[in-house]
Amino acid sequence: MEFIRKEMDWELNANGRSILECKGSKPMIYVGYGEESVDMYRGNFKIEDYVVERRPLHVTGITEGPEGISMDMEGQLTLTVRVEGECALLSFTQVDPRINRFWFRVDADEEECCYGCGEQMSYFNLRGRHFPLWTSEPGVGRDKTTYVTWRSDVENKAGGDYYNTNYPEPTYVSSRHYYLHVDSTAYADFDFRNREFHELQIWEVPASIRIEAAPTFVELLEKLTAFLGRQPELPEWVYNGLIIGVQGGNERSFGLLDRTLEKGIKVSGLWCQDWCGKRVTSFGKRLQWDWQYHKEMYPDLPKRIEELHARGIRFLGYINPYLVNDGVLYEEGKAKGYFATKGDGSDYLVDFGEFYCGVVDLTNPDAYEWFKDEVIKKHSLDIGIDGWMADFGEYLPTDDLRLYSGKSPMMEHNRWPALWAKCNYDAVKEEGRLGEVVYFMRAGGTGSQKYCTLLWAGDQSVDFTIHDGLATVICAALSAGMTGCGLSHSDIGGYTSLFDNTRTKELFLRWSEMAMFTPVMRTHEGNRPDTNFQYYEDEDCMEQLARLVDIYTMLAPYMKVLVKENAEKGIPVQRPLFLHYEEDGKAYGIQYEYLLGRDLLVAPVYLEAREDWDVYLPEGEWVHLWTGDVYQGGDVNVEAPLGYTPAFYLKDSSYAPLFEEIRRKYGTAASRD
Amino acid sequence: MEFIRKEMDWELNANGRSILECKGSKPMIYVGYGEESVDMYRGNFKIEDYVVERRPLHVTGITEGPEGISMDMEGQLTLTVRVEGECALLSFTQVDPRINRFWFRVDADEEECCYGCGEQMSYFNLRGRHFPLWTSEPGVGRDKTTYVTWRSDVENKAGGDYYNTNYPEPTYVSSRHYYLHVDSTAYADFDFRNREFHELQIWEVPASIRIEAAPTFVELLEKLTAFLGRQPELPEWVYNGLIIGVQGGNERSFGLLDRTLEKGIKVSGLWCQDWCGKRVTSFGKRLQWDWQYHKEMYPDLPKRIEELHARGIRFLGYINPYLVNDGVLYEEGKAKGYFATKGDGSDYLVDFGEFYCGVVDLTNPDAYEWFKDEVIKKHSLDIGIDGWMADFGEYLPTDDLRLYSGKSPMMEHNRWPALWAKCNYDAVKEEGRLGEVVYFMRAGGTGSQKYCTLLWAGDQSVDFTIHDGLATVICAALSAGMTGCGLSHSDIGGYTSLFDNTRTKELFLRWSEMAMFTPVMRTHEGNRPDTNFQYYEDEDCMEQLARLVDIYTMLAPYMKVLVKENAEKGIPVQRPLFLHYEEDGKAYGIQYEYLLGRDLLVAPVYLEAREDWDVYLPEGEWVHLWTGDVYQGGDVNVEAPLGYTPAFYLKDSSYAPLFEEIRRKYGTAASRD
Repeated sequence: MEFIRKEMDWELNANGRSILECKGSKPMIYVGYGEESVDMYRGNFKIEDYVVERRPLHVTGITEGPEGISMDMEGQLTLTVRVEGECALLSFTQVDPRINRFWFRVDADEEECCYGCGEQMSYFNLRGRHFPLWTSEPGVGRDKTTYVTWRSDVENKAGGDYYNTNYPEPTYVSSRHYYLHVDSTAYADFDFRNREFHELQIWEVPASIRIEAAPTFVELLEKLTAFLGRQPELPEWVYNGLIIGVQGGNERSFGLLDRTLEKGIKVSGLWCQDWCGKRVTSFGKRLQWDWQYHKEMYPDLPKRIEELHARGIRFLGYINPYLVNDGVLYEEGKAKGYFATKGDGSDYLVDFGEFYCGVVDLTNPDAYEWFKDEVIKKHSLDIGIDGWMADFGEYLPTDDLRLYSGKSPMMEHNRWPALWAKCNYDAVKEEGRLGEVVYFMRAGGTGSQKYCTLLWAGDQSVDFTIHDGLATVICAALSAGMTGCGLSHSDIGGYTSLFDNTRTKELFLRWSEMAMFTPVMRTHEGNRPDTNFQYYEDEDCMEQLARLVDIYTMLAPYMKVLVKENAEKGIPVQRPLFLHYEEDGKAYGIQYEYLLGRDLLVAPVYLEAREDWDVYLPEGEWVHLWTGDVYQGGDVNVEAPLGYTPAFYLKDSSYAPLFEEIRRKYGTAASRD
Repeated sequence: MEFIRKEMDWELNANGRSILECKGSKPMIYVGYGEESVDMYRGNFKIEDYVVERRPLHVTGITEGPEGISMDMEGQLTLTVRVEGECALLSFTQVDPRINRFWFRVDADEEECCYGCGEQMSYFNLRGRHFPLWTSEPGVGRDKTTYVTWRSDVENKAGGDYYNTNYPEPTYVSSRHYYLHVDSTAYADFDFRNREFHELQIWEVPASIRIEAAPTFVELLEKLTAFLGRQPELPEWVYNGLIIGVQGGNERSFGLLDRTLEKGIKVSGLWCQDWCGKRVTSFGKRLQWDWQYHKEMYPDLPKRIEELHARGIRFLGYINPYLVNDGVLYEEGKAKGYFATKGDGSDYLVDFGEFYCGVVDLTNPDAYEWFKDEVIKKHSLDIGIDGWMADFGEYLPTDDLRLYSGKSPMMEHNRWPALWAKCNYDAVKEEGRLGEVVYFMRAGGTGSQKYCTLLWAGDQSVDFTIHDGLATVICAALSAGMTGCGLSHSDIGGYTSLFDNTRTKELFLRWSEMAMFTPVMRTHEGNRPDTNFQYYEDEDCMEQLARLVDIYTMLAPYMKVLVKENAEKGIPVQRPLFLHYEEDGKAYGIQYEYLLGRDLLVAPVYLEAREDWDVYLPEGEWVHLWTGDVYQGGDVNVEAPLGYTPAFYLKDSSYAPLFEEIRRKYGTAASRD
């Protein structure tokens, strides 16, 4: 990187092109003062801002020192720039205490593409839109033109929009071969709509902005994750088969496990989210948020887990960082004063949809320890549980909430998911079970890279919609991968069923055939199990599922290498095409295909009632996984009946024998002959 | 008013309280620079603004002269304040040409109420909300929680919201007994959400802001309309009965007129909007936008009108300021170069919903003359037409439109409705027919007070919804009245029927019984006549309608006095309760009752399936119009079956004999005995 100064004007170049320009005629920083209004309803936020002042700042003084080049910006703040090799760190010191809005411009050009900002569900390339960064419910429908979105908005303020995500992060990667990360957990809004600049809005003066460049995307991601941290490898056992999500107590859950196994479906784990008991609401069946096993529904669970382990199967549960106010653990935490309070010191109970919970104050070291030791370790790890959904993290209220740290909840809100991830991480690590236990999270933020063992893509609707169905899972994995989180998976068949929108067998199978090309395969019964398609109620589906799971297990040797690469270098398991085909301009616009590692290209059928599918292949010799036909790259159309979602491997892949074995066993009838 | 200055700080007081404060510690003006994005689809606008800069301006120099006190504001603009009696005029001269955003703060207090801003459909008291001021389609549904709104948004970008209106105006009246008017037709947004100030946003530095105070609302409205102008009196003939809106050619229209008369319904006018021919679109039946009578549908129309006049009935047509590109007048105008063009000089054709029209360039004096003389006079007035719907005016595009005036369409857009009104006014005036002819408009702006003979409340949905049904008409009349337009009426039964939302008989009758307490009664078949209730298809309805119209004609002596008062003093015919009950705090929050003049209080039943109705009566002795029962003021509940919408007159009214006569003839059976 190159820092070029001419009196008070300067610019920063990377890869031979300007990234930052801070000139009298071209301000880089705007600051001001705003008054926000934030309204939360069950994890859905309405955030409005009244910007009272916004003005450009110019450099009014420069000093050079060992820390870098320090600039006085009109007495409002001090900026220090330090460039080391291909990395630039801009540190800010606020002088005027009134400033609470900060806008930062980065040079852009028309062809540029940007990716990341956490886990984005609707748009992988961020150009052309702005992305508010605030962890929240992702929305039900997420598309104002759909009936489900409209009803969700009207009845629950929950419809959402393209930018709503459980996992936002002020980090992006540019096709100009740099990443940029803002060190702040304040509300932010990254605006990629302008042709000539990106504008990053942050609701505080951030501590710093870090920009690092590299000659290739692979090297760039390695640098990004060297900085942000990397997810550890997954436990070996996950590759043994499917994690089945069933519930209803010992009898039903273990019964469905047996039934699944009888049908020849390989099972790696039994996931009972209602291990803690359940509660019925109008949304559907919810859980008893009191994180210990339910003695009536799951009698002798520790013993049952032990028996399961003897059969080579793992048991997974469920936890989140809230405790329901009619539970036992809530009483314990309340007696100790471990919950966030209102301004007047009284309990702040959060409405989660017809039940109310305390927010464990993870900024209080004692509360953090208690939840880690007395809740996670004692009630989950110590009874032999091998993993869990570490749910939520997005609901930190901002109105009248007081935290032990004394910090504003506006600043802590976006920090919460990583703090929650760390609490899980510390529990597992201290018990020496990293690499054996897997917890999966939907919420995230800066820090998730290190502390979250596996992402799951949240609560998709049980449909084929572009903005809330199967398709979003692909975009989610790719964007998370460009933010340093390369391990993702999803609820097979989706989760949210509302307003007569229900899961079909086709959806379940299309989702399964995509999931076998992700690090982990796991089913979920959804929020309304009784009215939605379940694989275990359909003989034919179980037969098909057995095949898909078997393919997943056959891919394990390949998958493990990818997962290891993610742990060691931060190269995601699911990769956008341009990661390995930088010269291919078309690759930058593709968000519904991905490379599973370098050798396998997957183009999931994410729409309903399709028999064939259009696929774009980068240059190379690609072998169709199911027929063995060879394609030379470019636009191709292939047959894609259920069970044969388009996938291609490189003819010269060192894993070609493995892929051929899959074809021989599970390819089209003609191909098997 | 009192102007108090202390060095560079000053304030303006009215009625003993500060209205403006311009101090170093408390800026009154903010200026800046913004980049708007304006997208129009069939009269529905999506307007977004990217505010690049916004900063407070402080007084940096003061000089006193004969023109007033002139202040330099940081070299950005000059402000001159002139106070004369109870009127203050603030004139602005822009110095920095880059400024295109202007924010102006006015002192407020928590109890204050504000009214006006043109014709507002959803909220009479403006406090607590902001009101973008931009003439547009009013929206179909106007409430994001309704199915009709959602469908309209999805299919036509037409759902709208609470603030959408055909008639916005940067003028409001405060309960602190002043009015404020901004001399600008730029896009504006008046924000009444803050407790301590109102903030008026204008997308230019306005020429001036005028504030005038008075001890009472009645005097204040008199001053406001002395400044803005006043609507002339209505023609005598309107009071003779109902204006029936029917169509379909001579045979059908005159046939329905005869049928209406046969049933004893008094008719003042026959309104055939399709006098110019018709066109069928997916929205419903539309008109042929070529403003001359249709020789096939209405053969010998001039002769038919003459015959009608002989029977004491008037004939009304329809015009708007666009001409369809397959019409005769379009050809004529195009040959003369009278349409607005694109930047490259080619025709700018506006999409009105499956047909395309030229925009007559009313800023071109020749085009204006042509449309006034060769279209309005020649084809309407000269064939004996007595009035018309002067529709539209809201569709001036802003993207690539060039006008003769050379002015930006962003500045001309809001000026268009009044310019269009003036064109009608001039035509009628020049023909010496002011006071004989009535044209009614939905679009408006500053100037409508003088140039528009009658407002109509636009295209309500055919339902009882709060934000787009019958109820909105009340709010529309009251807010227009507080902006200086005191003559309003509406389509009886509403207009817009979409997505299986259709007019019922109950709606038609409730609307009729309200309309008889407005200056003019007029029916409309709606956009889909065939699938909606029509009075002439229902014997019972015609009987009931005959009674209501007769009551309307009986009220004429009283109504004429009110209309005259509006023409002479600008006191609206339909008045908010607080206008005559300033001490009654509750009166300021009432938007669904009104005083028809000083003596009659009307509380229309605007909801479905009601048998009784809650009414608030200010202090006084109120006689229930239908029973003769006397109430002392306060909250009362009265029976309100169809035909008996709650109405009360002051016991000591000089018109009591007239009201008693109505009761004796049309009151409840018991009351008539």
